[in-house]
Amino acid sequence: MDRLRADALRTFTEKAFRQVGVPAEDAKTIAALMLEADLQGSDGHGIFRLPQYIRRFQAGGANPQPKIRVERERAAMALVNGDNGMGHLAMSYAANLAIEKARAAGSAWVGVRWSNHAGPASLYARMPLREGMIGMYFAVGNANHLPPWGGVEMLLSTNPVAVAIPAGEEPPIVLDMATTVAAFGKVKTRAQRGEPMPEGWMIDREGRPLTDPKRMNEGFLLPLGGHEGGYKGYGMALVFGILAGTLNHAAMGRDVVDFNADDATPTNTGQAILAIDVSAFDDVEKFKRRVDELARDIRGSERMKGFERIFLPGEQSHARREERSRLGVPVPPALLSSLNQLGEKLGIGRLA
Amino acid sequence: MDRLRADALRTFTEKAFRQVGVPAEDAKTIAALMLEADLQGSDGHGIFRLPQYIRRFQAGGANPQPKIRVERERAAMALVNGDNGMGHLAMSYAANLAIEKARAAGSAWVGVRWSNHAGPASLYARMPLREGMIGMYFAVGNANHLPPWGGVEMLLSTNPVAVAIPAGEEPPIVLDMATTVAAFGKVKTRAQRGEPMPEGWMIDREGRPLTDPKRMNEGFLLPLGGHEGGYKGYGMALVFGILAGTLNHAAMGRDVVDFNADDATPTNTGQAILAIDVSAFDDVEKFKRRVDELARDIRGSERMKGFERIFLPGEQSHARREERSRLGVPVPPALLSSLNQLGEKLGIGRLA
Repeated sequence: MDRLRADALRTFTEKAFRQVGVPAEDAKTIAALMLEADLQGSDGHGIFRLPQYIRRFQAGGANPQPKIRVERERAAMALVNGDNGMGHLAMSYAANLAIEKARAAGSAWVGVRWSNHAGPASLYARMPLREGMIGMYFAVGNANHLPPWGGVEMLLSTNPVAVAIPAGEEPPIVLDMATTVAAFGKVKTRAQRGEPMPEGWMIDREGRPLTDPKRMNEGFLLPLGGHEGGYKGYGMALVFGILAGTLNHAAMGRDVVDFNADDATPTNTGQAILAIDVSAFDDVEKFKRRVDELARDIRGSERMKGFERIFLPGEQSHARREERSRLGVPVPPALLSSLNQLGEKLGIGRLA
Repeated sequence: MDRLRADALRTFTEKAFRQVGVPAEDAKTIAALMLEADLQGSDGHGIFRLPQYIRRFQAGGANPQPKIRVERERAAMALVNGDNGMGHLAMSYAANLAIEKARAAGSAWVGVRWSNHAGPASLYARMPLREGMIGMYFAVGNANHLPPWGGVEMLLSTNPVAVAIPAGEEPPIVLDMATTVAAFGKVKTRAQRGEPMPEGWMIDREGRPLTDPKRMNEGFLLPLGGHEGGYKGYGMALVFGILAGTLNHAAMGRDVVDFNADDATPTNTGQAILAIDVSAFDDVEKFKRRVDELARDIRGSERMKGFERIFLPGEQSHARREERSRLGVPVPPALLSSLNQLGEKLGIGRLA
């Protein structure tokens, strides 16, 4: 598989967005966040999504020049209207606002509506880290692939949660998880690569395992907890979806637009971020030392037979980020060829 | 199994706490919340815990007359010191403070340290409901039964999360879940009843299924996600524990005191609550109508073969609460006999 340099991916992405009318500064912000997704290994959320994003702009489904604004506001909350621009822009705006409010109030919750797909949850949960804050992020996914527990109608998405916690010498602890066993992006990546899925990711309408990603539209994702405890994953998908969607008057349940099947209809995507200012609770350095100690206790604890290492959440992404920054991002041949086609169509040349 | 009337349970519990030095008003608060746990079906968290709570007071492990106070405070946060009193008192205090702050600021996060076991997570997540608010609660469990993913040292507890969302004509949506497949309270209830556990709740140190609850100390709980995806449950147990424990200078990781084995050492239990004022985002009645609609969409959707009904999170607890309020709380013979012994020892007479 070819590895492409970060700079090449970023420049190509920026140019592509500018060609469909996105202002230079915004194109830069979006491209930097999409690259971040690729560097950390969120392969279903980086440049993989570029052709689809560009199609949405061309089909009129998203607004290339949004006027993002605050609709409601108190000391520790805001409701942001993303004006149907890219989710990366609306969520960056919301995260910065949450950080600013948390600095004064100690914590702040900012909800977003009329947003769009924004990439991996951890991108936004991580934003408060730079200010010594804890971040927590919730989102309504952009396609319903999950029925309620005991049902077969796909009324829910994989509604993810991410939590990021600052550490001192250790990498930050970053949990980023879909409330399904697997995220649908992972299914799409398998399809793109022509690889089968493990049992347990998806089932068909009769509850039988579905492992061929080309048949993904004949079944649905299993909620976290799987066959035995999936009511918990279902419950999380529902309540996180209400927090990110229903509370913000954004799409949730039947209103969710399947953005994989429809490029033209605005999605009214809902997201939410919570920032907690650690300095309100404690000296930040002392807190970070306690997190370091906990991380080392866990990593250094006795392993079960067959495990070579105990990982902290986010540790593998952190390592992958370092490796890919040095060596480049692996891009599968099928993706590279579709990106090259896109570049030619947009008149910005091939990627590689 | 005998059913006992709510009043009888509450009065007995109140009297028991007063006999070990808890002031009348506090005993009332604790008894009401413990009864609430029994009514909603949280059988491992209600009067089942009374003998252990009383033992802790008698052994000096908990403070019967705490002076609960705010240690740090901003517009949308507080750190509360529970002064080693019952968790029910510290958390009621914290929830009320979060509600008050959220009313002005739109949202508020309140952390608690030097608290104790407080019963089921949903009790506190539900408190903001009465003010038309959303509640979210996190806690560090009071015994470590969970190793990190790939490990065998039990450095983590079942650290639960609960989210409560107000509805209109529908019951509120209340998710209350341990980050393990099963909560340890459920294991204890099975042991008390002499019933085996299903496979998947616990494993031994070699990873083999453990189904005899009498052997509970030879193994550990499986994190949510089980054999395949347990790294997600482990990740949640860790980050929710940091939010409820480490952030508040409360016990987490190695510092957690096993309160099932040790009545005398203060636990420094950490908990946290987030209140979000719906009225800051929207007209509360409109929001509740949207939640009602979503709940009905889900309940009325097509079912999978073998399922008689689709439930919303909290719906079964809600129904159980109504049923038990009318018919009384079922109390297994072994528990009843231990409560009767306790009553005689404390000089307050038998329960029934």
